[in-house]
Amino acid sequence: MRGMSRSLAQFLFAPQSVAIVGQSDDAAKTAGRPLKYLRQAGFGGRVFPINPRRQEVLGERAYASLSALPEVPEHVYIVAPTEAAVEAVAECGMLGVKVATVLADGFAEAGPAGEAREARLRDICARTGLRIIGPSSLGIVDLRSKAMLTANAAFDEPNLPVGRILAASHSGSMIGALLSRGKARGIGFAGLVSVGNEVDLSLGEICEATLDDPGIDGYMLFLETLRHADALRRFAHAAAAANKPVLAYKLGRSQAARELSVSHTGALAGEDDVADAFLADCGIVRVDTLDGLIEGLPLLRRVPRRAPGGRKPTVGVVTTTAGGATMVVDPLASRGVAIVPPAPETLARIRSATGIDVAPARLIDLTTTGARYKAMKAALDILNDAPEFDLILAVVGSSARFLPERAVKPIIDSAQAEKPIAAYLVPDAPAALAALSAAGVPNFRTPEACADAVAAALRRRAPRPTPPIKKRAASENAGRVLDELEAHAMLDRVGIARAPALAIDVGVTSAPTLPFPYPVAVKVLAADIPHKTEAGGVELNVQDSDALMAAIARIAGNVGSRLKRVLVQPMVTALGEVLVGYRVDRDVGPLVMLAAGGVLAEIYRDRSLRLAPVDLATAQEMIGEVRGLAALSGYRNRPAGDLGALARTIVALSQLATAQEPVAEAEINPLMVRPQGEGVIAVDAVVRLF
Amino acid sequence: MRGMSRSLAQFLFAPQSVAIVGQSDDAAKTAGRPLKYLRQAGFGGRVFPINPRRQEVLGERAYASLSALPEVPEHVYIVAPTEAAVEAVAECGMLGVKVATVLADGFAEAGPAGEAREARLRDICARTGLRIIGPSSLGIVDLRSKAMLTANAAFDEPNLPVGRILAASHSGSMIGALLSRGKARGIGFAGLVSVGNEVDLSLGEICEATLDDPGIDGYMLFLETLRHADALRRFAHAAAAANKPVLAYKLGRSQAARELSVSHTGALAGEDDVADAFLADCGIVRVDTLDGLIEGLPLLRRVPRRAPGGRKPTVGVVTTTAGGATMVVDPLASRGVAIVPPAPETLARIRSATGIDVAPARLIDLTTTGARYKAMKAALDILNDAPEFDLILAVVGSSARFLPERAVKPIIDSAQAEKPIAAYLVPDAPAALAALSAAGVPNFRTPEACADAVAAALRRRAPRPTPPIKKRAASENAGRVLDELEAHAMLDRVGIARAPALAIDVGVTSAPTLPFPYPVAVKVLAADIPHKTEAGGVELNVQDSDALMAAIARIAGNVGSRLKRVLVQPMVTALGEVLVGYRVDRDVGPLVMLAAGGVLAEIYRDRSLRLAPVDLATAQEMIGEVRGLAALSGYRNRPAGDLGALARTIVALSQLATAQEPVAEAEINPLMVRPQGEGVIAVDAVVRLF
Repeated sequence: MRGMSRSLAQFLFAPQSVAIVGQSDDAAKTAGRPLKYLRQAGFGGRVFPINPRRQEVLGERAYASLSALPEVPEHVYIVAPTEAAVEAVAECGMLGVKVATVLADGFAEAGPAGEAREARLRDICARTGLRIIGPSSLGIVDLRSKAMLTANAAFDEPNLPVGRILAASHSGSMIGALLSRGKARGIGFAGLVSVGNEVDLSLGEICEATLDDPGIDGYMLFLETLRHADALRRFAHAAAAANKPVLAYKLGRSQAARELSVSHTGALAGEDDVADAFLADCGIVRVDTLDGLIEGLPLLRRVPRRAPGGRKPTVGVVTTTAGGATMVVDPLASRGVAIVPPAPETLARIRSATGIDVAPARLIDLTTTGARYKAMKAALDILNDAPEFDLILAVVGSSARFLPERAVKPIIDSAQAEKPIAAYLVPDAPAALAALSAAGVPNFRTPEACADAVAAALRRRAPRPTPPIKKRAASENAGRVLDELEAHAMLDRVGIARAPALAIDVGVTSAPTLPFPYPVAVKVLAADIPHKTEAGGVELNVQDSDALMAAIARIAGNVGSRLKRVLVQPMVTALGEVLVGYRVDRDVGPLVMLAAGGVLAEIYRDRSLRLAPVDLATAQEMIGEVRGLAALSGYRNRPAGDLGALARTIVALSQLATAQEPVAEAEINPLMVRPQGEGVIAVDAVVRLF
Repeated sequence: MRGMSRSLAQFLFAPQSVAIVGQSDDAAKTAGRPLKYLRQAGFGGRVFPINPRRQEVLGERAYASLSALPEVPEHVYIVAPTEAAVEAVAECGMLGVKVATVLADGFAEAGPAGEAREARLRDICARTGLRIIGPSSLGIVDLRSKAMLTANAAFDEPNLPVGRILAASHSGSMIGALLSRGKARGIGFAGLVSVGNEVDLSLGEICEATLDDPGIDGYMLFLETLRHADALRRFAHAAAAANKPVLAYKLGRSQAARELSVSHTGALAGEDDVADAFLADCGIVRVDTLDGLIEGLPLLRRVPRRAPGGRKPTVGVVTTTAGGATMVVDPLASRGVAIVPPAPETLARIRSATGIDVAPARLIDLTTTGARYKAMKAALDILNDAPEFDLILAVVGSSARFLPERAVKPIIDSAQAEKPIAAYLVPDAPAALAALSAAGVPNFRTPEACADAVAAALRRRAPRPTPPIKKRAASENAGRVLDELEAHAMLDRVGIARAPALAIDVGVTSAPTLPFPYPVAVKVLAADIPHKTEAGGVELNVQDSDALMAAIARIAGNVGSRLKRVLVQPMVTALGEVLVGYRVDRDVGPLVMLAAGGVLAEIYRDRSLRLAPVDLATAQEMIGEVRGLAALSGYRNRPAGDLGALARTIVALSQLATAQEPVAEAEINPLMVRPQGEGVIAVDAVVRLF
């Protein structure tokens, strides 16, 4: 398997021979580019242009077909139009080509005819062992082997920046953007790949194939949606084991963007926060800015992964310009990062070592007086020793532009210490940035990208060992919904406290004695009526047995004759309500969710999501992430809720992921949170089986 | 006055003679820079270096003091240390110098001694007519007159980028950042000023003094806090009248940043959302990213100001790369901007004109096939004519890097149309960006800055004519708090519906007949007990006269003998609760606020703020901005609240700004929102007078 991976990587990135199907004689056309780029870069392997209508393209001999070649090329880039591309893929399969990369579109996104074409590609792979990148792939490039199998216009240049990063992108245009924007920053690449529609090789598989490559030490991913999550997870775990960081930018934070994504790729855009939870669980760091993606990898190499339940990492900020530094602090703090002031003894040491009367504030402002080597170096040395900081952010003002030896060199000289350091330079200061990059010091061009990358790096967790999850065929909307008594039994089995309940036949002529006191709630008991309130099937605060009989009659009248039973429960009072949910996502598997209760929480989308199962420390993290739960943790002297019991309930529900229960979806809403020591109680639960 | 302004501008930016007090002989030192920069730039006026300890500095004759000069210079830059700087200011005043710019710190931020120094500066200005920039000013620069009165290290270069923008900054470092970052983008400046602590000349006054300058057609402001709001407002209104756009970046979105700001500047950082409301009211456009500030002005010149109550502006997006375009759409949509799909007839025209089978989606994706001049130009022409779009965003992929004539030139050729257009280029494409800039087409380097600037430009309102606001000395915490009966009378006078109420003496021996039905609420009636609930002074849902007597007794017992009366009100049921508040802010004047009710809304900081008074259209805008109010406007088929009555109540409370009522602060909480047609009712109000 590993042996195969290695050779797959060679076929992909360093083929000994390539063919270009559909190579044009006009280098200005998209289909004219690959041969031009291969020659421009000086690819050392054998190259076979294929064009049935010409003897020669761009001054080289053109072949009529793949079958006409003197050998079977390892990697074929097919830049021909859709129908011809499918035929070329078939020929590749027949001949024993290892990898075909397909530029054309017109597949899954193009209706039934496109889907049939895509099915044919899959079938060819299955029958022949051919591997396919694409379709809709703008190509794959290795800047070391000079295999320029791309039609992306941004690769039309001689000095391509060679480095140690592999970039993989759902968007073909973005490989050109990453290449050119990286070059402008002195950031180079080992290779770049536009994975297209991933009909065969997925982004995760392609990246995984390169993990043994000693020339690659980090990954930059541009994701449009979450597809082939299993392969991505496998790659992410292996990358973590190999200590190669993975940084990702993913489209779709907004609803509007998700709609675009759907219409473009033909893939169902996953819910963005499912993707967020998935990437975090895999140890893939997600940034929100393009520059954060391009500039963030050096920081990941230095910031250790965060253990669940550990101390929240802290940042110390030292600067020569308070205004400039605050531009980074502002978005950092908005992302929830703790920027802490120096301890009194740290401040005293800095004052004494620098001779600057630094003000006692959250920001260590050396002022322009600190734009001297000795002052900045002394301050950084002290911060490196100070236990209150996990990461140091150095922000340098105007001196960085023309006097880097004063304010930037001390950062370089301090960066050998174990503690991670990041630098933001306030002016345009290309020489200073280049010096920082050359020394491996993470540095950023915009305050927003700096804050984005620092916050993302501090969030990174170690990928969680995948627990033994019960694999079940996810049959959306197809499974049986339990009635509430059955749902209660499920809660009892997983150990979640619930309100007592009694089922009563609708036809009773007198109210039974209840095993709990009035007032009570009366609800429809029927699995086929999920929206009980809307159906007129719920009565609350029923005060006595007469009222109970009347309530049953009203509910029966509202719902109609199909209703056989109602469920009676005591009214549960509590400090607040939350929603705890579990579901098995088609892409990423079991998930557990905690959300604040009520309509406002729904409007604010105030929730925390994790891949299930979770442990207690993770459940506590989730509670910390739901902002509305501040109201239950002693906010403004309000009584605190039993958040310990809430955490245990989240853990218990999440265990469905590894249990025998064939639960596809379970939602406890509301889960009543009572005062500390009094626990939590499920009042209503909807459960759907596979 | 205008005549004075003009000459002030000349003293500031184009003095005929300058002196540098404290000029060092060492050009590497901060105090050595001004003379070096003046000579390097070729300043044409007379320059007098002053250094009492040397005969010569940097090869020029040094004078011993200002008094020793052969003439009185118009503008003196004082780079001497604190105490010497104060003496030099005194000398300037005595001699009749027009403007002194002061570098030293050690004033208001440095405790009582510093405050005394600052008072002395103010006194000198008042007595002599001297105007001061600073202290803590890194200087003032005019790139046309070459008056380089700065010690900022970023100005140490020959080819300073001359343009038509004036940059004004609270942070001294930032003038270097704006200059150098602008230069890297081909953006030039007429002048830049670091306003320092604004002990005399404020940022607003300095900018206003330049409004007649035909060489300045836009303003870039970097604000640390909101100071001298009146001057800023006056400038903003005059700038709008002169059709010169003002773009601002302000620190302090996060609490952490506000704390930094306090500790650094010695100024009380205004609440950030007060600043936000103020800037918007003045027609100053606030961006959230540094690049948005640097790159945003050209867009402001083209986007018309938004009228309150008008249609929400819409954006159409055309691209050659869906992935690249979505990077902009994502943050745009997160900022609430409406990205709309083309109408069917628009889509049909585009398909027919380009020959591209554009998919019917929100994004007009020409795909790489659209990277041809004719296709992009045809699409843009059609979008320019299509009434469904107010602004066009063009996103170009890899072709922008080496083939600008294909994909960027059509944008330039379409930009002559009336409809504003903005361009984001996905790869690093300096030549294409420069071509766009040269043609005056707004263009952006990062998707985040593009979204930031587009959203900000579409939000811009015309500055509101300042209504005749009653000026009153704001005496924080000093004014009298009304008791609730008095507060009710105030609500009655301004025309806000409230719950009926009856005051009852605590000593009554039998319950009086109420003018409204039970159940009722009973509350402490005493202005000196503001936190009624915490004092055990509120009983709700009191069912009858016996319960009323018992409730009064309990409240009297909790509060003690100082309590004389309670207030009884009917329990008011409603669909929801909101908070409507009014207060006179020390910096910006009267404000009106609408917030969702309850503890969750407080946690989520879900509120909308405006300068008072507001009209009905603005009140409706405010309702649209409070996310939680979605629950009262038909969310998921819930009954809709009477939002019309809510809007009228906001307007009524905001009228306190122009009324005789000497109200410093008024808070209605809760204001109960009843179903449509049934109005809103104030249940509790706290009012504080001046």
